[in-house]
Amino acid sequence: MSRISKTPKPPYYAVIFTSQRTAGNNGYDAMSEKMVQLASEQHGFLGAESVRDEAGFGITISYWKSLEDIQAWKENREHKRAQKLGKEQWYDSFMTRICFVERDSSADHKQ
Amino acid sequence: MSRISKTPKPPYYAVIFTSQRTAGNNGYDAMSEKMVQLASEQHGFLGAESVRDEAGFGITISYWKSLEDIQAWKENREHKRAQKLGKEQWYDSFMTRICFVERDSSADHKQ
Repeated sequence: MSRISKTPKPPYYAVIFTSQRTAGNNGYDAMSEKMVQLASEQHGFLGAESVRDEAGFGITISYWKSLEDIQAWKENREHKRAQKLGKEQWYDSFMTRICFVERDSSADHKQ
Repeated sequence: MSRISKTPKPPYYAVIFTSQRTAGNNGYDAMSEKMVQLASEQHGFLGAESVRDEAGFGITISYWKSLEDIQAWKENREHKRAQKLGKEQWYDSFMTRICFVERDSSADHKQ
């Protein structure tokens, strides 16, 4: 199955989360999986793409219908708890960018 | 050194390139390195973040001052040659998304 999100025709929104993990797992993998699942159940969720390399550097992008959907997810109680743990334990550094996706283009040689 | 781009205060633009590599290298690594270097010399380039995992799934994001800068980079002669080879040889599938970055927030526990 492709890990590239089948997002609808733009416009829509993207949240780019770039991060450097700390050493050790400390419950990160379980929480990460749980948050992807929880996000996918939220109103306006359009998809997510995520990759992390062996050095612990990662990019996760979630796609949303509206800024209101992004704000609601940010304020989600379980997500807020995960964000707190992320800041305290899991990330050396991170950057979040909120974006308006204007255009896209794709190719799939497997189709 | 941090792999998170020190981009200026928004607004600016982002090009999200999500891709699945084919098996084998076939000159990919050398060209990839060359293109990052070449991009960084272009007008309006603000930074780039890139990560690929062992399964060959990757996300590369480049940041730019304007849509005109993105268009000029897309039309760059050497970049066009790389794009052609990418479509023909290096990628099973990919998606490019052009985005307007409206807001950001960051944390760095190492600073």
